[in-house]
Amino acid sequence: MTGAQIEDIRGRLQAMEETIIFSLIERAQYRLNHGIYEVNGSGFYMHNTTSRLERALQQQELLIGSSNGMFDAPEVRPFSPNLPRAGRSHKLASDGLFLTDLNAVNLNSEILGAYLEFIRAVCMEGDDGQYWHDALERDVTALRSISRRVHYGALHIAEHKFLEGPEAYIELVSSGDIEGIKSRLRVRRIEDETVLRVTRKAHDIQSYSDHELRRRLGPEAVGRFYMEHIMPITLEGEVRYILQRPVSLERSLP
Amino acid sequence: MTGAQIEDIRGRLQAMEETIIFSLIERAQYRLNHGIYEVNGSGFYMHNTTSRLERALQQQELLIGSSNGMFDAPEVRPFSPNLPRAGRSHKLASDGLFLTDLNAVNLNSEILGAYLEFIRAVCMEGDDGQYWHDALERDVTALRSISRRVHYGALHIAEHKFLEGPEAYIELVSSGDIEGIKSRLRVRRIEDETVLRVTRKAHDIQSYSDHELRRRLGPEAVGRFYMEHIMPITLEGEVRYILQRPVSLERSLP
Repeated sequence: MTGAQIEDIRGRLQAMEETIIFSLIERAQYRLNHGIYEVNGSGFYMHNTTSRLERALQQQELLIGSSNGMFDAPEVRPFSPNLPRAGRSHKLASDGLFLTDLNAVNLNSEILGAYLEFIRAVCMEGDDGQYWHDALERDVTALRSISRRVHYGALHIAEHKFLEGPEAYIELVSSGDIEGIKSRLRVRRIEDETVLRVTRKAHDIQSYSDHELRRRLGPEAVGRFYMEHIMPITLEGEVRYILQRPVSLERSLP
Repeated sequence: MTGAQIEDIRGRLQAMEETIIFSLIERAQYRLNHGIYEVNGSGFYMHNTTSRLERALQQQELLIGSSNGMFDAPEVRPFSPNLPRAGRSHKLASDGLFLTDLNAVNLNSEILGAYLEFIRAVCMEGDDGQYWHDALERDVTALRSISRRVHYGALHIAEHKFLEGPEAYIELVSSGDIEGIKSRLRVRRIEDETVLRVTRKAHDIQSYSDHELRRRLGPEAVGRFYMEHIMPITLEGEVRYILQRPVSLERSLP
C-alpha cells in the first residue's frame, strides 16, 4: 500500500462520519424510550430474555444477512449471535485484508454499550410511542452505521500500518506488548482533527434547522462520542487485527 | 382545531423535511444500481415477478408491521399489498381524523414512481455492489420517510381545512368538483416557502462536507422534487381525504 491508499481509507472514514451524524441527529428526535432496551420491555411476549433492540437487530440481520450475504463483507459485522451463514457468497472486491475469520474482529458489543451510554446522555427522558418506526428503527440504523465505520477503519488502517513496518509489529506481538502495539498504531493528530471536524459538521448540518420544531443534538456530544468511544473502539479493533494477522503474506480467506 | 394547530401540523412537516433530505443525500452516495429495480434483477431467484426493491419493502413491512402494529398509524401506510393485519393494535393518541378505512388514502404507488424518477436523475449510472446495506437499504429508508410526510400532511391538513369551512367542501364534493376542492385546499405561498426552505437546507446540510469524498446532492434537485412531486402528491392525498370524509362528525374508526 502507498501513502495515497491511507488517504483513501481516511477519506472513506470521513465520508462515513456524515452518515453517523445524520443517524444520531435522527435518533435524538425521540425520547429515550426505556422499553426498547429493557429485557421484557415490550409487555408483548411474556418470557423474553432479550430486549426489543436485540430482537430488532436480530430480525434485521436475519432478513438482510441470510438472504443477501451481507455478512460476507469484513467491515459489516453482525450484532446478533448465531446467524445462519449467507445463502450465497458475494464476489467481494479484493480488499487486501488478512483475516483468519470474518468475525476475528467484531466490536459490536463494545459499540452497543457505548451507544446506549450516548443516547442516555443526549435523549430526553420518557417514552413517545411506537418504537419500530421511530426510536428503535433509528437505533438500528445508527448502530449499523457506527459499526461499519469502526470495522472498516480498524481492519484497513491496521493492515496499512502493519505493511509500513511489519517487523516492529511482529516483534511487539511476539512479546505480547499490547500497549506497545496500541501506541504504535495511534495517531493523535488525526484523532484531534477528527473530533474537531465531526463537532463542526454536527453543528453545520443542523444550522438551518428550526430548533423549536426539531431537537438539536449538541455538536460537542458528537465530538465527545468520537473521542471517548468511536476512536478508542476502532483502535482496539486495530490491535485485535494485528494480533490475529498471520505473519506470512498469504491470505487466510479467499 | 385552532390556528395554532395548523402551525403544529406545518411544524411537524417541516421537521420531517430534514429526515427526508438526509435520506436522499445518503441514497445519492450510491450509483443507480438498476438491479434493484428490475423484475428478476437479482439473478438470485429465477422466477421472480417482483423487483428487489419491492421484495425489500415487503420483507421490511412484514417484519415491522406484523410484529409491531406499525400500520395502525394512519400516516404510516404500507407499500406492499396484502400484509397480514397487525398482531396487536396500539393505543394511538386521538388524532382527530375521520377515515373510513386506514388505507382510504394511500399514495405509495405515486410516491414510488416519483422517487424512482428522482433517483434516476440524481444518481450516477452504474452498479456499486452489495445492495442491501447500501443503495437498497437507503431506498427503503427514503421511501418510508417520504411516505410518512405525505400521508401525515395529506390527512391532517385536509381535516383541518375541512373544519375551517365544512359547507364549502360538502358542496364541492356533492357536485363532484375535484378541481374546485384542489384549488380550495392549495396554498401557493406555503408551497413556495417550502421549496425555498428545503433547497436551502439541502445546501446547508452539505456545506461542510468534502465533495471529493462524498457526492453532493444538488439542492435544487431536492427543491424540484418537493415542487413537482412531494407537494402535488400530498395535495392529491388531501383531495382523497376530503372525498371520503363522512359529513357527520362521528368518526368511522375508533
